[in-house]
Amino acid sequence: MTASSHPNPRQKAPTELSSLFLLLKDHFQTLDQFLSDQVLAFEPEIRDIAAYCLENGGKRIRSALVFFSGWEEGPLSPGLVRLAAVIEMVHLATLVHDDIMDKADLRRNRATVAKKFGPDTAVLLGDALFSQAVHLATDFPSNEVCRYVSKSTRRVCSGEIMQTLRDKELNSNIESYRRIIDLKTAELFFVSCYLGARLTPFPSEYADAAGSFGRHLGTAYQMYDDLTDFFGNEEIIGKTLGTDLVSGKQTLPLLMFTERVGSEKSEQARRNILNGEPDAIQQIAHQMTDLGIFEEMARITEKEIFLATEALSPFKDLPPSTQLLKIADILRNQIKALKSE
Amino acid sequence: MTASSHPNPRQKAPTELSSLFLLLKDHFQTLDQFLSDQVLAFEPEIRDIAAYCLENGGKRIRSALVFFSGWEEGPLSPGLVRLAAVIEMVHLATLVHDDIMDKADLRRNRATVAKKFGPDTAVLLGDALFSQAVHLATDFPSNEVCRYVSKSTRRVCSGEIMQTLRDKELNSNIESYRRIIDLKTAELFFVSCYLGARLTPFPSEYADAAGSFGRHLGTAYQMYDDLTDFFGNEEIIGKTLGTDLVSGKQTLPLLMFTERVGSEKSEQARRNILNGEPDAIQQIAHQMTDLGIFEEMARITEKEIFLATEALSPFKDLPPSTQLLKIADILRNQIKALKSE
Repeated sequence: MTASSHPNPRQKAPTELSSLFLLLKDHFQTLDQFLSDQVLAFEPEIRDIAAYCLENGGKRIRSALVFFSGWEEGPLSPGLVRLAAVIEMVHLATLVHDDIMDKADLRRNRATVAKKFGPDTAVLLGDALFSQAVHLATDFPSNEVCRYVSKSTRRVCSGEIMQTLRDKELNSNIESYRRIIDLKTAELFFVSCYLGARLTPFPSEYADAAGSFGRHLGTAYQMYDDLTDFFGNEEIIGKTLGTDLVSGKQTLPLLMFTERVGSEKSEQARRNILNGEPDAIQQIAHQMTDLGIFEEMARITEKEIFLATEALSPFKDLPPSTQLLKIADILRNQIKALKSE
Repeated sequence: MTASSHPNPRQKAPTELSSLFLLLKDHFQTLDQFLSDQVLAFEPEIRDIAAYCLENGGKRIRSALVFFSGWEEGPLSPGLVRLAAVIEMVHLATLVHDDIMDKADLRRNRATVAKKFGPDTAVLLGDALFSQAVHLATDFPSNEVCRYVSKSTRRVCSGEIMQTLRDKELNSNIESYRRIIDLKTAELFFVSCYLGARLTPFPSEYADAAGSFGRHLGTAYQMYDDLTDFFGNEEIIGKTLGTDLVSGKQTLPLLMFTERVGSEKSEQARRNILNGEPDAIQQIAHQMTDLGIFEEMARITEKEIFLATEALSPFKDLPPSTQLLKIADILRNQIKALKSE
């Protein structure tokens, strides 16, 4: 596969995810309504800004993990919707702050909060969203949701701090990359699956297994996402291509690239993008493919997906596991699709 | 009183507060140790940065409110220390974010987090501090602390968003100023007093009264603080004088000033500070005094202190009320001291 001959290799992927998410159509509608109603929880003067964030349906992958890990026959439980909303709002808060730091103009095909309302408002809106997420979590009878969600959020932020500090260093390495994505991405996947599972009547060992599944899946998802900074399509993924590269984020594909071509050539490639040279991203993607980076990334990502399904195997016959494993399958298929092209 | 003849009118005030806080010496030592121990709750890679924030004892006025509203004979209860730490950490988180927006270099006589570690790290550290504050709050057996603290934090952020949006407008008015300080400052004073009181064996009506006391005291405190952007002394208050003015924050004294001298002269005064003209702040302070703004600010601030003590009057003989009323007295004395000079 080369990026230039297949400029849009991910076109099929969202379709596949969308068809799985058809199972959750009613769940998502209930969630969207719930999030929309949350706007009223904010002070009247800032509801417009809160609504701008809350009423913009994203990929909702974390919500899907909540719904699938807590999957039950019969009507959707209000607790599961609330949990999905809590996690979605925490995730939205981190995105609002991420976009300030990345100086990204576009998120989900429209202006970021930082772009539209300014960075100061974006800092504060992220804070308000997170506060309201926690406040909503106190509607659960016990402290457990607050406890896990607040810890996970701290870990997400810690991971991002490490990334910020590391991006300034030259001695980035693959171990620290793994540590960072475990914190900044896998943590929220873990807590989505773990807490979703805790709301089922199944034993706590199932929740532990679901949590472990989520952590490995999250790792794979971030690795895949980092790859699509070079191979993605802006229209499909709804974010500016090359954002990580331009902002100097030391993702694994970029670390591998620098390792193989040397920091001088890597820096030149980055400058080409900054200078707006046409096809600059495509050229890097092409080189990455030729250097075997694409293949290597696919291999370690598939390994994580394998570990995710392994974690769940003692409970693989439970209805929620069946659903969770479908997400793992889709991610595996997305990588396969890229490889075979 | 004129600013030029008395360049440092607040010199006596901190001494008075310090002597009241001598009552809390052991409480603060326990709190400082507790906050220092909290560093270990953060991921190892970011502990240095967390420590930079947590091990920098500030004025601790919110902690004092917690300790006084929950005042009891006998040994200090661990719950009160934990609550003080939760609220102190939330407050620290908001300060870390405020300093990004204000572009302030100095806080408590040393570099702000934004200045020392960069604005990106400051955004994320503020988030991590807030997350850990909530996580700590889940150590209480019930959801109540999380519930109130998260709601108050949302309201603090909302107030700051309104301030950010309003500072860009010309039609700022006194009602919106009051609404904003109720949210951004009085809210955390309220929750400190309310939750501190909830940890006592006294009836819930006492907690409501303490909460109301805190809200009025917080309003008075913010009005007084806004005045000290013009009349304060950098060495004593540990922040850069004129910060609000330079950043365009429409505080009440500045609104009154603009109302009386017109926006052109007000803007000129601001430019004088930006251009580093010597005595620029002192000149504004002088004018404010002559225009009666100082007197008017003192009057409405004293009114809030009166309302605070009124709220507590049905419970004025309870040991915690006796302590809380001392803080009100000190603030009243600080204003009196300014007026008599």
